[in-house]
Amino acid sequence: MRPVKVGIIGAGRIGRLHAENLVRRVPGVEVVAIADVVEEAAQRCAKKLGIPRAYGDPTPIFEDSEINAVLICSSTDTHACFIEQAARSGKHIFCEKPIALDLEEIDRALDAVKKAGVFLQVGFNRRFDPSFSAARDAVAAGKIGRAHLLKITSRDPAPPPIEYIKVSGGIFLDMTIHDFDMARFLMGEEVVEVYAAGAVLVDPKIGEAGDIDTAVVTLRFESGAMGVIDNSRRAVYGYDQRVEVFGERGMVRVENPKPHQVMVLNADGDHGPPLLHFFVERYTDSYVRELSAFFEAIQKGEEPPVTGRDGKIAVVMGYAAKRSLEEGRPVRLSEIAPSL
Amino acid sequence: MRPVKVGIIGAGRIGRLHAENLVRRVPGVEVVAIADVVEEAAQRCAKKLGIPRAYGDPTPIFEDSEINAVLICSSTDTHACFIEQAARSGKHIFCEKPIALDLEEIDRALDAVKKAGVFLQVGFNRRFDPSFSAARDAVAAGKIGRAHLLKITSRDPAPPPIEYIKVSGGIFLDMTIHDFDMARFLMGEEVVEVYAAGAVLVDPKIGEAGDIDTAVVTLRFESGAMGVIDNSRRAVYGYDQRVEVFGERGMVRVENPKPHQVMVLNADGDHGPPLLHFFVERYTDSYVRELSAFFEAIQKGEEPPVTGRDGKIAVVMGYAAKRSLEEGRPVRLSEIAPSL
Amino acid sequence: MRPVKVGIIGAGRIGRLHAENLVRRVPGVEVVAIADVVEEAAQRCAKKLGIPRAYGDPTPIFEDSEINAVLICSSTDTHACFIEQAARSGKHIFCEKPIALDLEEIDRALDAVKKAGVFLQVGFNRRFDPSFSAARDAVAAGKIGRAHLLKITSRDPAPPPIEYIKVSGGIFLDMTIHDFDMARFLMGEEVVEVYAAGAVLVDPKIGEAGDIDTAVVTLRFESGAMGVIDNSRRAVYGYDQRVEVFGERGMVRVENPKPHQVMVLNADGDHGPPLLHFFVERYTDSYVRELSAFFEAIQKGEEPPVTGRDGKIAVVMGYAAKRSLEEGRPVRLSEIAPSL
Amino acid sequence: MRPVKVGIIGAGRIGRLHAENLVRRVPGVEVVAIADVVEEAAQRCAKKLGIPRAYGDPTPIFEDSEINAVLICSSTDTHACFIEQAARSGKHIFCEKPIALDLEEIDRALDAVKKAGVFLQVGFNRRFDPSFSAARDAVAAGKIGRAHLLKITSRDPAPPPIEYIKVSGGIFLDMTIHDFDMARFLMGEEVVEVYAAGAVLVDPKIGEAGDIDTAVVTLRFESGAMGVIDNSRRAVYGYDQRVEVFGERGMVRVENPKPHQVMVLNADGDHGPPLLHFFVERYTDSYVRELSAFFEAIQKGEEPPVTGRDGKIAVVMGYAAKRSLEEGRPVRLSEIAPSL
Repeated sequence: MRPVKVGIIGAGRIGRLHAENLVRRVPGVEVVAIADVVEEAAQRCAKKLGIPRAYGDPTPIFEDSEINAVLICSSTDTHACFIEQAARSGKHIFCEKPIALDLEEIDRALDAVKKAGVFLQVGFNRRFDPSFSAARDAVAAGKIGRAHLLKITSRDPAPPPIEYIKVSGGIFLDMTIHDFDMARFLMGEEVVEVYAAGAVLVDPKIGEAGDIDTAVVTLRFESGAMGVIDNSRRAVYGYDQRVEVFGERGMVRVENPKPHQVMVLNADGDHGPPLLHFFVERYTDSYVRELSAFFEAIQKGEEPPVTGRDGKIAVVMGYAAKRSLEEGRPVRLSEIAPSL
Repeated sequence: MRPVKVGIIGAGRIGRLHAENLVRRVPGVEVVAIADVVEEAAQRCAKKLGIPRAYGDPTPIFEDSEINAVLICSSTDTHACFIEQAARSGKHIFCEKPIALDLEEIDRALDAVKKAGVFLQVGFNRRFDPSFSAARDAVAAGKIGRAHLLKITSRDPAPPPIEYIKVSGGIFLDMTIHDFDMARFLMGEEVVEVYAAGAVLVDPKIGEAGDIDTAVVTLRFESGAMGVIDNSRRAVYGYDQRVEVFGERGMVRVENPKPHQVMVLNADGDHGPPLLHFFVERYTDSYVRELSAFFEAIQKGEEPPVTGRDGKIAVVMGYAAKRSLEEGRPVRLSEIAPSL
Repeated sequence: MRPVKVGIIGAGRIGRLHAENLVRRVPGVEVVAIADVVEEAAQRCAKKLGIPRAYGDPTPIFEDSEINAVLICSSTDTHACFIEQAARSGKHIFCEKPIALDLEEIDRALDAVKKAGVFLQVGFNRRFDPSFSAARDAVAAGKIGRAHLLKITSRDPAPPPIEYIKVSGGIFLDMTIHDFDMARFLMGEEVVEVYAAGAVLVDPKIGEAGDIDTAVVTLRFESGAMGVIDNSRRAVYGYDQRVEVFGERGMVRVENPKPHQVMVLNADGDHGPPLLHFFVERYTDSYVRELSAFFEAIQKGEEPPVTGRDGKIAVVMGYAAKRSLEEGRPVRLSEIAPSL
Repeated sequence: MRPVKVGIIGAGRIGRLHAENLVRRVPGVEVVAIADVVEEAAQRCAKKLGIPRAYGDPTPIFEDSEINAVLICSSTDTHACFIEQAARSGKHIFCEKPIALDLEEIDRALDAVKKAGVFLQVGFNRRFDPSFSAARDAVAAGKIGRAHLLKITSRDPAPPPIEYIKVSGGIFLDMTIHDFDMARFLMGEEVVEVYAAGAVLVDPKIGEAGDIDTAVVTLRFESGAMGVIDNSRRAVYGYDQRVEVFGERGMVRVENPKPHQVMVLNADGDHGPPLLHFFVERYTDSYVRELSAFFEAIQKGEEPPVTGRDGKIAVVMGYAAKRSLEEGRPVRLSEIAPSL
């Protein structure tokens, strides 16, 4: 099969991570160009990885008829616009989450994708984590019967800079959004209502910036099943990412992996290492696997596994949680977006 | 020191369990009488354990001036009345939870205790579980710094009979009540607000009886910390009792003990045994330890470790959860009981 | 069924432990007398547990026709002699390990038992540990197919006093003897050869007393399967008692139980408690279960589960290990005892 | 720093694995040529990875003055000869284990290396496994004090083909050799004596081929510490690779990593996945890390971390084990090689 030719938009941390994975670990793909507003960043990355062309602007990528697909890894505020441009240029699209913070923008972008008949995958990489995808498989295979209760623990090792928090859209749209998607993925059904409780316990500056740093979000699924997500911006023992799905015939549980398997036992007890530091270490495999899945799907002409609708619903859930927190009451998703 | 002479009221499952523990495992105590409305039950138990006297009515126990303390293990509706009688007779009281389902009755009972100057301990045995008490010690010792998030998973192996559910006061007053007490115990602070979500997923008959079988309860503590309890009436893999307290400097975590330490590894993977079946197996030690603590306290003339106020607050939390579920909004404890 | 009347010989640590278990935890048994060379020790124990008679000499126990069974918990050098006396008195016998350190004495004792037609159980309590007995059940049920490799780790928390070591018969007859019995129990077959390597690493005084404190013993079973036992007299992290049986279709593994299930996670990693301290804490249940099994067997008129032959073979293995260590070569059990 | 130019000899499984790691994961290295007796294999690999030159014979690699280092990944019988040729050509050498099965050949090869003043690293990759290297670090840092007992469990998922076994040199030189090196690495001291016991339990054809498939090897270190290795050619539950080092102040323990962290709990108990299949999956990181360490060392002009002497001693231990098994007695390494 002829390799898919790819252009990458954005040479920041996640763009470079995807670029390296595409070049080194995803067969059947050829990265032919990379663009970044900081042209030098694009050039440095291109040089390091042997990517032929580097630009300070994505236009030549959209105009390059040889390019079949683009990866949008630029800042959030540019996602929707680049999706529309890419769609109009007839290119398949892999876009980092969130599609946009504005629901109308999302709708316009998804419309453009639909009209153009191209494929779009949103970067909810955690679905491709070997443990979480095996957990989903177990649930889908009926190993626990009908699901009753979902639990997700998702705690970062340290909060981002306050400047970032100010433009992030808030914890629910920046951090919990991954857990919202994970909830739908693991349960295989839609959430209808959320109730969010939150607090500022990690750093008062986060509160001053109008956000919270600790949250407990209760979910209600359409089947009547329930879920709960707990978040913290700072777990000193490392990146804490656990899930469990409990049902009529049992429970599927995913604990944190360890950086190594060494235990030291002494007169004080037994001692193991802290958890993996953060998402780059914890979700290494998932980044490779999400891109492999994307390119496999478009090579086969099939819908990729995380759709634009998935991307939109997670944002809707974020807004529902936000409103719930503000108003101190459960909020139905239909209050945010009448139809999904 | 002279042994404390004890009368036991109630020779049902929990009364017999306490009786046997007192006779065989708690030194410095002499059980001199046991009473049960089914007099034969009292006699059988007395005979088996060598308890000198057995009655079909507790009156002779209250009247026996030799008896220093009573254990109230009769049905819930009799607790408050027997507490008052015991208090008036000048006897120290160990009473099974809940004190009563009616808050005014509770207040009357606690008043009687106060007026009589006797001691009262409520049977929240889980505080005395070696793991949970070690977890509380770690939190109190500052091992995790300021607490941010509490999580309690509490799932029974199977629902009680529907007839029992009908008179139980509902899941929050019957089952979650233990978790409400555990929440206050582990955190060492008061809950100010609860939000309860619930569903009927285990058995529709439970719904027909006006109750739920699956619940997620969000707690807000006075410090701003949050908590979440999840309950199910049926975990097929056994009695699931876990807690975690997460804070600024770490996390304390209690996992389920196993009935034995055998693992079988074969071509399908590794396999361990189901969890301990239910509370009698899981909390064996805690029952002995709560009685030891009670008698140690009264021997020293000190307030026992679980007070009447503790017993009352757990009931108030149960009513707050009930109202929250009915009205679909967070409920402050002060709405139920203006002062605690 | 009428209760079995029991006399206990020896009111030292293990005698008192058995006495308390019999009185409090083993139904259908009545302890009517206890004897100890230190008569006061017997009296103290009798008083504490409500045992009617206490003696400074076991003769009245042997002469008491009402007594059906004796527990021999006195010092090792008296075991064989008391077995013979008890057998001649027609009493069933539970005897602590080892039967004797002299093989001829053992044979004489076993002959007396045989002639008298009474039952004898030897105190290899670990067979009755819930984990080890479940492991044996799994092996016997064919869960791992034919067994290939047995591993036993058995490490004490601290060495006994040097004075004790001098009269103990050496590590193989004092400490490894339990592991030798465990090896035969778990595999369900006989050992034909042992190779023992040893060293003095814990305390040079142990070496000066003519013993070793660290050992690795290789076993060869009659089926060709192999085993290895490792011992140390001092594991600072607690009493380390693990086994694994590896076979053609898998492995059965027993890890150490923990005193509680609390983990603390902080910036240094995760931390659990040290292991249970020593045999009294680790094997609590096994002591109750071995006595229950003994009395159940004799009530039914059946051979108890750990025979005199089992007691003898473990001693033979101890001598084979001793000779192997001295001569630096594998030693067949048949070199020590031509027929077993 | 200018990249090191490398030639790879051998394009079989391990050669291709190293080639891919060098091209994709080890910075500062440029693979300029690959050779294999099956020239087509070399060409295929070269094409896939963008290696400029491919040969059916290693001579052009030795003659290429631009090449600084070679990787010898060809069949065992060619290692020593290629080491000598590479040394004479002034190239640094990374050679797969074992250097040779003949001790004189090894000596000649090591002499050639010494004379040429080049560096040689032997491919004991397990030293670079993150868990085993962290375990070694803990031991070296004194975390457990003086080491008393080493335990290594090393079991393959399935035996190699009988044809391979016939030419492998036997289990001790083919499989246990890795454990012999691990023993010296973890303890940081030399073994002086080995006692090997073995059996044919997995497959009688292995016995017919003159080998064993199950082994227990006791080690004695120069400090007096002891060790034990257990091997099996077939663990149906996956590749079982565990170690523990027990000492005066505690124990360091390495358990097996899992392919993912999913547990399923149901009425039968809890269930996890089988272990990683074999060395390619289990030791992925170690292969990258051993090459990084090699190239880092030669770039700095320092002795690489696994020397030719390390390679020789592991072979000597293999022969000592072989003789021990044949003669049924412990064998000192000095009997095999008078000086090491």
